[in-house]
Amino acid sequence: MPDKPSTIKLTRGVPPVEVFPTEQLETCSRTVLEKHGDIVLQYGPARGFPPLLEVVAEEYRVEPEQVLLGQGSLQLQDFVARLLLQPGAPVYVEEPSYDRAVTILKRAGGRVVALPLLGDGLDMDALARRLENEKPGLFYVVPNFQNPSGSVMSLPKRERLVELACQHRFWIIEDDPYRRLRYRGEDLPSLYSLAPDRVLAMSSYSKLLSPGLRVGLCVGVKEIMNPLTKMAEDTYINPSYFNQAIVYDYIRRGWMEPNVERLKALYRPRLDTMLAALDAEMDDLATWTRPDGGFFIGLTLNFPVGADTLLARAKEHGLVLSDGRGFFANRGGDNFVRLPFCALTRTEIEEGIARLAQVARALA
Amino acid sequence: MPDKPSTIKLTRGVPPVEVFPTEQLETCSRTVLEKHGDIVLQYGPARGFPPLLEVVAEEYRVEPEQVLLGQGSLQLQDFVARLLLQPGAPVYVEEPSYDRAVTILKRAGGRVVALPLLGDGLDMDALARRLENEKPGLFYVVPNFQNPSGSVMSLPKRERLVELACQHRFWIIEDDPYRRLRYRGEDLPSLYSLAPDRVLAMSSYSKLLSPGLRVGLCVGVKEIMNPLTKMAEDTYINPSYFNQAIVYDYIRRGWMEPNVERLKALYRPRLDTMLAALDAEMDDLATWTRPDGGFFIGLTLNFPVGADTLLARAKEHGLVLSDGRGFFANRGGDNFVRLPFCALTRTEIEEGIARLAQVARALA
Repeated sequence: MPDKPSTIKLTRGVPPVEVFPTEQLETCSRTVLEKHGDIVLQYGPARGFPPLLEVVAEEYRVEPEQVLLGQGSLQLQDFVARLLLQPGAPVYVEEPSYDRAVTILKRAGGRVVALPLLGDGLDMDALARRLENEKPGLFYVVPNFQNPSGSVMSLPKRERLVELACQHRFWIIEDDPYRRLRYRGEDLPSLYSLAPDRVLAMSSYSKLLSPGLRVGLCVGVKEIMNPLTKMAEDTYINPSYFNQAIVYDYIRRGWMEPNVERLKALYRPRLDTMLAALDAEMDDLATWTRPDGGFFIGLTLNFPVGADTLLARAKEHGLVLSDGRGFFANRGGDNFVRLPFCALTRTEIEEGIARLAQVARALA
Repeated sequence: MPDKPSTIKLTRGVPPVEVFPTEQLETCSRTVLEKHGDIVLQYGPARGFPPLLEVVAEEYRVEPEQVLLGQGSLQLQDFVARLLLQPGAPVYVEEPSYDRAVTILKRAGGRVVALPLLGDGLDMDALARRLENEKPGLFYVVPNFQNPSGSVMSLPKRERLVELACQHRFWIIEDDPYRRLRYRGEDLPSLYSLAPDRVLAMSSYSKLLSPGLRVGLCVGVKEIMNPLTKMAEDTYINPSYFNQAIVYDYIRRGWMEPNVERLKALYRPRLDTMLAALDAEMDDLATWTRPDGGFFIGLTLNFPVGADTLLARAKEHGLVLSDGRGFFANRGGDNFVRLPFCALTRTEIEEGIARLAQVARALA
């Protein structure tokens, strides 16, 4: 029987370090320096390492000129926001939404308008009502296993959303880093595949291989991708081709698919353990999402509580929680808890949820 | 006798690919993944890989909290510009100046004011006059072997500049990537060493090791470095520790100093070859700087010419030149030519200058 963990962190959504395929990455680094040293150690065009551009282009069925690789996808979102947003322009996000993306949008001058998430994704009625008043500069959406709620947007809602985007001519940023980490069920079509002229698709290799390589990507129409690439060049000349070439070599060797399968085999039981623990401990205290993939379960306590109180009590019980308010762009979130499960052991998950239930019960 | 080169590019200031120590970098990559795989493949704090922060801190005699590592130094300049500049605020630069830095400053809303460079650096009288009217948000300076002119700011001018910065309370960005590439003569004190409270020191490993690793740095007071680090985190979470750790391992092994010596031994005769070729061919056509280091000689034709004509004629002679106007923030530069010498062979340099002389003579 393992010892009871001292402090349990239910905070950041990072992969567990033990999943990084270090030896394989050593092989790839060596190969890249031997074969492409003259390219990856030099300056190059901002768009990215050409062989990886081609891999991504093939995956999205676009031309390489429609792809931009960057130091993680968040940075590319910064470029999109700076390119597309006028100061004070309304920007739509889901509520809750990924806190770092909201920060980027606000910093670029966007006036963030948060639209509620329901069980099957966006509240479309709220969106339709809002669009009667004003059209957004862009709409930031995480359709699959959303950070922080874990929710997935249903197919009818995807279809309706892109229809509205085409009709009202606003851009969608589809941030989709978790799509490949589906533990059961069937993939839904991406927003990008439904409306490639209205959607900028963002993803990264952070969750599929390693965050530390910092390789993210954006795919879209050339009228956006060309000025976006110019903005990237003007900002940092180019991102590191070395890292991009390592990702390319990893894919070329056929190692990505087995790696993703390995991750899914590790994460799936962790998700199930957390869902079972929640069912056992918190049924009368909260509601939560039941995602089929990704990194997070989103939980909402079914009683009012101040986030400061909740976090302080949790800490007293050896439990570190994220501040739910950070995911709510305007206000609210006090009783929202983002529960990451991928980087925790079975014991940590069960003990963590038991402590959360104990804290919640005392506050209810 | 080598063949006459077909086209000679006197454009970008990049290191020649043959100087990259590929095998050493393979060793470092392997070591880093073996020893620090769990850190470099994961997310981490935005400031950078702690052992490299410590190396830089020791070099600048500061605390690690005063250092920020980034994906090249240009990107860190973007953060500085966005942090310190109010829209429309005057920003001083040298004229000519590094085109990419000027773009960054303009994009951040700066109103760029260009102050002429003389043989020994900045025209201090022009600066003093300008300061009577308005104080800049910041002043961007490349004091050593400036890009594009090759000029070095004299010690008295350095002292006077930081005195004025302290008196008028403006920030100096000291961009100093070439300092270690001094081929003769003595180092001058950095602006940072003269006024660490008024100067943000920028440098990078691009010219000393490899641009493709994209590792740059900024050093300054904590009141700037802390919000700058927060801005970096909000933009990309963190830059790749993998690349930073490779640079660290390279330094730890004692390989950096011999590498810099090797580069100097390669670049010094190329500089001398170019100076000799200019003396032989262009004495009556132009004036130029005689730098003791760096990547560039700055040449000014001593007759009026349109840059478009100059570039077109050069091209007809198999010579590709940078557009001199790009280095002049406001206007001018038509008769300015940036001459990079590090990545060219002796034959290319001699033939290139011969062609330039031929073009100039026809236009004079």
